[in-house]
Amino acid sequence: MRTTAAVALEAGKPLEVMDVTLEGPKAGEVLVEIKATGICHTDEFTLSGADPEGLFPAILGHEGAGIVQEVGPGVTSLKPGDHVIPLYTPECRECDYCLNPKTNLCQAIRSTQGQGLMPDGTSRFAMTNGTPIRHYMGCSTFSNHTVLPEIALAKVRSDAPFDKICYIGCGVTTGIGAVINTGKVEIGSTAIVFGLGGIGLNVIQGLRLAGADRIVGVDLNDTKVEMATRFGMTDFINPNEVDGPLAPYLVDFTGGGADYTFDATGNVEVMRTALECAHKGWGESIIIGVAPAGAEIATRPFQLVTGRVWRGTAFGGARGRTDVPQIVDWYMDGKIEIDPMITHTMPLSDINKGFDLMHEGKSIRSVVLY
Amino acid sequence: MRTTAAVALEAGKPLEVMDVTLEGPKAGEVLVEIKATGICHTDEFTLSGADPEGLFPAILGHEGAGIVQEVGPGVTSLKPGDHVIPLYTPECRECDYCLNPKTNLCQAIRSTQGQGLMPDGTSRFAMTNGTPIRHYMGCSTFSNHTVLPEIALAKVRSDAPFDKICYIGCGVTTGIGAVINTGKVEIGSTAIVFGLGGIGLNVIQGLRLAGADRIVGVDLNDTKVEMATRFGMTDFINPNEVDGPLAPYLVDFTGGGADYTFDATGNVEVMRTALECAHKGWGESIIIGVAPAGAEIATRPFQLVTGRVWRGTAFGGARGRTDVPQIVDWYMDGKIEIDPMITHTMPLSDINKGFDLMHEGKSIRSVVLY
Ligand SMILES: [Zn+2]
Ligand SMILES: [Zn+2]
Ligand SMILES: [Zn+2]
Ligand SMILES: [Zn+2]
Repeated sequence: MRTTAAVALEAGKPLEVMDVTLEGPKAGEVLVEIKATGICHTDEFTLSGADPEGLFPAILGHEGAGIVQEVGPGVTSLKPGDHVIPLYTPECRECDYCLNPKTNLCQAIRSTQGQGLMPDGTSRFAMTNGTPIRHYMGCSTFSNHTVLPEIALAKVRSDAPFDKICYIGCGVTTGIGAVINTGKVEIGSTAIVFGLGGIGLNVIQGLRLAGADRIVGVDLNDTKVEMATRFGMTDFINPNEVDGPLAPYLVDFTGGGADYTFDATGNVEVMRTALECAHKGWGESIIIGVAPAGAEIATRPFQLVTGRVWRGTAFGGARGRTDVPQIVDWYMDGKIEIDPMITHTMPLSDINKGFDLMHEGKSIRSVVLY
Repeated sequence: MRTTAAVALEAGKPLEVMDVTLEGPKAGEVLVEIKATGICHTDEFTLSGADPEGLFPAILGHEGAGIVQEVGPGVTSLKPGDHVIPLYTPECRECDYCLNPKTNLCQAIRSTQGQGLMPDGTSRFAMTNGTPIRHYMGCSTFSNHTVLPEIALAKVRSDAPFDKICYIGCGVTTGIGAVINTGKVEIGSTAIVFGLGGIGLNVIQGLRLAGADRIVGVDLNDTKVEMATRFGMTDFINPNEVDGPLAPYLVDFTGGGADYTFDATGNVEVMRTALECAHKGWGESIIIGVAPAGAEIATRPFQLVTGRVWRGTAFGGARGRTDVPQIVDWYMDGKIEIDPMITHTMPLSDINKGFDLMHEGKSIRSVVLY
């Protein structure tokens, strides 16, 4: 079939919206009509050329929602008409990782996904001249239609709006899941969140949902305060207004350090600060942000020997087919908010404007509506 | 009273065995006759001058066992004749740390202990000319008699031999506790232990006790193999015999990385290797060794984002008054071994020989018998 997609032809260039060809689903695969997709920093990271594993030409996008159009042979859990959210972290429920309750990093299709290919080692996308186009993060939601493995689709309720729940495909789940699945934050906890962009806001509302008492936000930009407060932030610190090193200040500010700290900046120096303002004896620090290639985190081992724990999280520790439908329910039940974070919408033809808004720091999330 | 002690008069000099004066126990304190004490690397670290917080003159030693001689006012849990093990990590059962199940780092007497003083801010020890002598780690077991707070003494069964259970006051509990309390290692786990000295051997027997299937020891010295095998090591790797970087080799050797890795070397490069050979998704790496002042650990945050956890442990995460008596029981029941690790014994007058044996790498543990 033919469909319309925004294609990343090469690193550092704007996307080009064009007709592409899409092969139908093979065994275990599903054809999905994408109805909405968010534009995420990870798409930007790859498009910019900073991602050492980036491949071109490719159809980016990994934060979508849509409707099943057709299923390939052997697909049993989905049928045409089902509403779905694509999962860049699949859930096969059979591999060693899926069977280990400590991780969500299903490895069933990892190697082909990393190469921008379907599990059989080929691509379903091509230019109209026949040149193959790579898939991206197993999703390629910057195409109006895409093909995914059955294990990479979460089936969600049909009354949830695509233009909001698409964000659950990445940022919402990453932030809320970091709190609930990775941190396992307890009622009454004190937490510090570094970086009040989209991920940080979702960490904050995850902390509110988990019953944290004190939710301290840290950002260099005072304009983030209003939105963060709306999502549950109780205190705000701008490091530019702190004399001396930040970690001891935050330890003091929280009466000995936070029970949980979260880095949502991707800056390795901030990651260190986040660890070092976790509470002695039991504080846990969770890295969410993606650091530049080659950057390293460091600290004195004494920080760990005296009881702090250093962790990271990917896709919020969520098992997508199981957890994403629940987060959609939480949204529909009003337990979490998404609407205020979707600051801009646009048609696919304007997708590059969404990247511009991100660069300019004007958006929390731009969503493309098909 | 007068007693005999090995006094550290200044950094870098041998200990001097001499008569010292010891004031009796004040409120909440206990006078203990030390019957045996191990000589630990931490004593050596301070004696050498490498410990930036070292204070002199001091009576070192923190790995002892003895008999209560006298109790001060208000002491209720101990009486003369009780057998005890001094605890450099006390357990008050009342502070915020003792009441938090995630930590063992009781803070009740931390600041005075760090200054080499009793909780009232004074020392019980002095030279015969009246010059005060500092306590050390709240224990000072290199004195035939010492005074400790009640909360820093574990009451143990009276049929356990002092010359063996003294080692439970530090190395045994540190190693076994790192496995049981900090790692919470499950039956069937795969583990890698870096450094096969006394701590490493105790980690190994802790892993055996916890039911680990595969216990890989890593050391530069092949002579460690026999003893480590006796304590439960199932595989040995000498990094000198590995071509290329060690972490990927160990990941491969363990079929994807270890569920738990332990650094018992104090070398920050080894700590990094230990983290990086933990299993993707769920592997935890636990730092036990004490690094040189100022040394830092580093890694790429990707290691954590893909599911590895970096922890540390102090005194094996043990709550001394609660856990040490149980470890003594395990020893008496034959669940763990100590005897083969006590390679040398000597009278207090020969204590400097114990340090020499440590420097020469000839001992696992030297124990001074009073
Ligand atoms: Zn994303
Ligand atoms: Zn799986
Ligand atoms: Zn010790
Ligand atoms: Zn306490």
